[in-house]
Amino acid sequence: MPTNPDWVKKLKPAAPQGTDILSGERAKSNVNVDQLADFLFTQKTLQQREELVKILSAEQVFDKSKNYFQGREDRILGSLARGKRLQQLTEKNNWPTEKFEHALQLISEASPLAMHYKMFMPTIREQGTPEQHKLFLEKAQKFEIIGCYAQTELGHGSNVRGLETTATWNPEDKTFTIHSPALTASKWWIGTLGKVANHAVVMAQLVIKGKVLGPHPFIVPIRDSKTHEPLPDVHIGDIGPKFGFNTMDNGFLLLNNVKVPHVNMLARFSRVDPNTSQYIKPPTPALVYGTLTYVRSTIVLESGSVLARGVTIATRYCAVRRQFQDLDAKGKVGENQVLNYSMVQYRLLPLLAATFALHFTGRNMITLYEENQKRLAAGDAPGGSDSQRRPGPEELNAGGDLLADLHSTSCALKSYSSTIAAEGLEVCRRACGGHGYSSFSGIGSYYADYLPTVTWEGDNFMLSQQVARYLLKSARAVLTGKASDNDTTRFLKNFLKRQDVGAAFDVLGSDTELVDAFAWRVAYLTFDALKKRDEEKQPWNSLLVDFYRLSTAHAQYMVVKSFRDALSIDSTTKAGLDQETLAVMHLLYKLFALYTLEKESTEFFSSAATTVKQIALARKQVMKLLEEVRPHAVRLVDAWKFPDWQLDSSLGRYDGKVYEDMFYRASELNPLNEVVFDSNPNSPHLLKKDNRTKSKL
Amino acid sequence: MPTNPDWVKKLKPAAPQGTDILSGERAKSNVNVDQLADFLFTQKTLQQREELVKILSAEQVFDKSKNYFQGREDRILGSLARGKRLQQLTEKNNWPTEKFEHALQLISEASPLAMHYKMFMPTIREQGTPEQHKLFLEKAQKFEIIGCYAQTELGHGSNVRGLETTATWNPEDKTFTIHSPALTASKWWIGTLGKVANHAVVMAQLVIKGKVLGPHPFIVPIRDSKTHEPLPDVHIGDIGPKFGFNTMDNGFLLLNNVKVPHVNMLARFSRVDPNTSQYIKPPTPALVYGTLTYVRSTIVLESGSVLARGVTIATRYCAVRRQFQDLDAKGKVGENQVLNYSMVQYRLLPLLAATFALHFTGRNMITLYEENQKRLAAGDAPGGSDSQRRPGPEELNAGGDLLADLHSTSCALKSYSSTIAAEGLEVCRRACGGHGYSSFSGIGSYYADYLPTVTWEGDNFMLSQQVARYLLKSARAVLTGKASDNDTTRFLKNFLKRQDVGAAFDVLGSDTELVDAFAWRVAYLTFDALKKRDEEKQPWNSLLVDFYRLSTAHAQYMVVKSFRDALSIDSTTKAGLDQETLAVMHLLYKLFALYTLEKESTEFFSSAATTVKQIALARKQVMKLLEEVRPHAVRLVDAWKFPDWQLDSSLGRYDGKVYEDMFYRASELNPLNEVVFDSNPNSPHLLKKDNRTKSKL
Repeated sequence: MPTNPDWVKKLKPAAPQGTDILSGERAKSNVNVDQLADFLFTQKTLQQREELVKILSAEQVFDKSKNYFQGREDRILGSLARGKRLQQLTEKNNWPTEKFEHALQLISEASPLAMHYKMFMPTIREQGTPEQHKLFLEKAQKFEIIGCYAQTELGHGSNVRGLETTATWNPEDKTFTIHSPALTASKWWIGTLGKVANHAVVMAQLVIKGKVLGPHPFIVPIRDSKTHEPLPDVHIGDIGPKFGFNTMDNGFLLLNNVKVPHVNMLARFSRVDPNTSQYIKPPTPALVYGTLTYVRSTIVLESGSVLARGVTIATRYCAVRRQFQDLDAKGKVGENQVLNYSMVQYRLLPLLAATFALHFTGRNMITLYEENQKRLAAGDAPGGSDSQRRPGPEELNAGGDLLADLHSTSCALKSYSSTIAAEGLEVCRRACGGHGYSSFSGIGSYYADYLPTVTWEGDNFMLSQQVARYLLKSARAVLTGKASDNDTTRFLKNFLKRQDVGAAFDVLGSDTELVDAFAWRVAYLTFDALKKRDEEKQPWNSLLVDFYRLSTAHAQYMVVKSFRDALSIDSTTKAGLDQETLAVMHLLYKLFALYTLEKESTEFFSSAATTVKQIALARKQVMKLLEEVRPHAVRLVDAWKFPDWQLDSSLGRYDGKVYEDMFYRASELNPLNEVVFDSNPNSPHLLKKDNRTKSKL
Repeated sequence: MPTNPDWVKKLKPAAPQGTDILSGERAKSNVNVDQLADFLFTQKTLQQREELVKILSAEQVFDKSKNYFQGREDRILGSLARGKRLQQLTEKNNWPTEKFEHALQLISEASPLAMHYKMFMPTIREQGTPEQHKLFLEKAQKFEIIGCYAQTELGHGSNVRGLETTATWNPEDKTFTIHSPALTASKWWIGTLGKVANHAVVMAQLVIKGKVLGPHPFIVPIRDSKTHEPLPDVHIGDIGPKFGFNTMDNGFLLLNNVKVPHVNMLARFSRVDPNTSQYIKPPTPALVYGTLTYVRSTIVLESGSVLARGVTIATRYCAVRRQFQDLDAKGKVGENQVLNYSMVQYRLLPLLAATFALHFTGRNMITLYEENQKRLAAGDAPGGSDSQRRPGPEELNAGGDLLADLHSTSCALKSYSSTIAAEGLEVCRRACGGHGYSSFSGIGSYYADYLPTVTWEGDNFMLSQQVARYLLKSARAVLTGKASDNDTTRFLKNFLKRQDVGAAFDVLGSDTELVDAFAWRVAYLTFDALKKRDEEKQPWNSLLVDFYRLSTAHAQYMVVKSFRDALSIDSTTKAGLDQETLAVMHLLYKLFALYTLEKESTEFFSSAATTVKQIALARKQVMKLLEEVRPHAVRLVDAWKFPDWQLDSSLGRYDGKVYEDMFYRASELNPLNEVVFDSNPNSPHLLKKDNRTKSKL
């Protein structure tokens, strides 16, 4: 590795030092960082985090210092090595799943082994029979087989019913022929497939006697367990580089009339009678949405900390970075911290507020989901991990009111929270100015890796249709007096009762009425959409933009409500949050709610939830709140307790040694500084270093 | 390279084929693609484009097929080889600068030689004396020296006055000592420095007898012209990987008391008398903004085609891609083209409209700039390429009204247009669904490469302060009756005259009044900000968010106005645009203006430029316009005439062979498919292929 000459080693950043600046920031706020961290995560999780960082950062295989410099092959190899080692550690120490997943979070990269744990094994567990568990799951647990979940095709993503791969039943030898009839039938984007898996759960159209019965899961061996070469009539490969997620071997898979035995169709719910060739349908297709709802709830919860990672980095760096003097400052006062500029505050601090808002909302979703699961526990909840399917309306009907409400809520929140987190990360990156563009900011690659979340588990735009469908259905039920009592129907009824009287919410003075104003707007948009669809008979397609707005409004209502509820006397007293810390959290609540209201102001005054005057006052209030939150910003991001090892960011270091770290990585870790290039157009060579072959132009 | 088995080679995408779909799209619109292309670019440019693509695509060195797969070192080497070869071609064929730059555009990557042409040579040309031209410029032209422009430092970006590098005058031996006094003084982000340049123009604080006289340019030799190794007391390196722009060798540079002779300070404007050690100041510092304005105008012009590239790819792919049936469709009609969904139209088609709007606006800016230059031609316009400096208010005062107006306009438009283009590219990428995330979409890396534009040549948020400063100054002049007559003062005066009467613009019925409504909103925001600053004495810092909104509003007004003007009878008749094509362009104008109005609706009704009712109608009208533009979408993007070779995108191919190309690149070009990994955690190995060393875990 390159080294710096002595005169360079002696250089320090110009004063004041980042470390002193951040200490100063921490001294001027009384936010209780540890208390707040406990409130967010619990003591137990925080201790586990420390323990894991200690274990992982001590091992060479988990070293992150080369990651930003490596090409794709090395990234995958490194990530595979870490995946293997983590598996060994987990087995050796008998870590529970939760701890294993916590470690993955700290390593912070997509592991090419991930789909084996996350999709292959759960699918067999949930959709396989006890016989299939014995045959496949036990081997998978011991890594005798490694699998992936092959659903998406080159020509079909969201629309699972359009999949082209077929699984044709052969009664004569009791097998299925799995086949890719066209190029567009190639499985595509399948994680863990490109280089790693030797088995796949393949979603294919079941065909019995020429009749197509929809997509079903089949276990297909794809690589030789010894040589790891593809099996005959199986064509596999990595699909190439992506915008991010490049440690993952997303792959393609084509099958040329590959036969698998009857037992390879996962048969807990649907199955084929091997003797009569009869297709046996699943009992109640409705309840599959439990799993879907759970997966989306975890995305909501995760969105808070995803965004918090970017906000932590940007807040610390904007505190350390100084640029220009304040224009109104008298005399020579030195340059101003970038975080003092109101434009920077306006970009960053509402996102800081959003991190907490999303975290509390996600936690709320998980609690609701768990309560619901308990209620359902009496019966067997069929379904499974078919998490990319879109439910049809008839399925929603059958699922019961609470599940339908939860399903709709999870759709709206998944769509909204992942959009905020993804776009917020990019706002954080830009708030870091020029250095935000360096890989060492730690935001760019993290953002790029996170981006698929806006598309998978239901595309964020597609999902909004399901939210609208549910709200329209609820509104119809309210109008016909057939609605069951839940939060949604209550605010819809309230709107109907009061719409002519008017609302007159005191959005600036009352926390409760602020939430009510958000509910009112959802009700207004719901009945507006209902009128267009049911009375004016407008085509579904022409209403998609209205539906997206409606879904966003619904999500914003729930996030604002969850944030307020999280700060209730009950929950904060239980958590032992002191008054000063709680007061700052309350500022963040107001900031998030009023900032959102201001951004969406057209819908607030169109629905008469607020007056135009209130919007102007909200705008003013937001600017005031930014000033009030500013002194606490560094402590508030500290409460997220990201270890430096996880952030892997020069700009976001806890100790503020921003410039030292940037320089260290560039000058001492950068392999490009080991070679010398010949740049002269008159010379035919490109490389000059002796230890390399001269590369010809 | 890997090859596909025969049974795979025989596979085709499921019907209908992309080629047929795009032919169908082209058949159902009468937009005259060639006419429109001429109107955008002129015949001459289009012919040059064809000629260049033919030349470049024929040479192996310009082959793009490996780009998406290569690591950073190979990317820089490849790009350096192309830079050298392009230089040879340019010399051999005696291409004018414009043709050389056109070729760079088609190659579409940041060349590590770029700063030699773009900054090093122009700086010497503009700021050097004839003696210095002879000494440095002539050698630079012959590549005897290769240079870069070293201004930004690790600790200082936007604020050039804060630079720490010093150049101390030594009267005894008539030299300057160039020195980096701190780590934060390290030059940073400097293109062409990391691996390529052997000279740098270093911006350093001139110090004479202990007095600091501000940043000045010095030519400093940094690498040995033979060995290419750094010279003594010079520490250089590449700053490491970035979010994009990875073909560029952005570098760092530290200098340890390096002496250069008197002649190395570029001395056309400021200079040091070598005998008396007197500092001689530049005559009129005001006029440097000519160059700045020009650079920003080119960014505005470029933003149209940058965005058009993403829109072309997304529009073609969304026409080819089919997903789900229309919910209201009766019977089996097959899957719907994604472009038919109103939510997709709402995301893409306003951006399609914006591509033209920005292009016409940029052209307009360039014309204004050139007219202004002619007027100034009488006197000598000093200044130069110091394009990252921020002018102080006193400099703006001195620059004359027209230049000040042009400068402000270029700031507002640079900020707005590059924001729209950058964010629009990401909207396009997501509109491509899952495949948008693949590098083969051709959008992701292009977006990442474009992103620095929102930060350089004036950070988009910083610039808005200059716009506000100018508008406030104009408003003060209007109020005191001292305003000169220009477009800005006219709409400010009009607002003052009519503000109590009201506006009542017919934004839906009249093109002219639609423009007037945008001007009215700017005037309203200007006087509102003026009141806060001058009457309420609010601190400058507290108004930055207002200023950003004001700057955006001003830019939107100018873009809407430029679009309308470009479609005037005069210009379109001259260009020979037929009535049908013009009518479609007119739809795009309405779409852009009303979509923007709807998005910014709060400011339109707060300012009473429109009523709330009009906003609702505008929303409805936008949905109608989307439907009307839809059939012409493919032809409209065709008019941008991007060669496939330039787009380098599977999804954006002119012939619609999307899936064939995705599969070809993944299966046949992907080097990762040549190696076999050992994924089993029980095995200590990572690689299995015989021709590679087994890599240990």
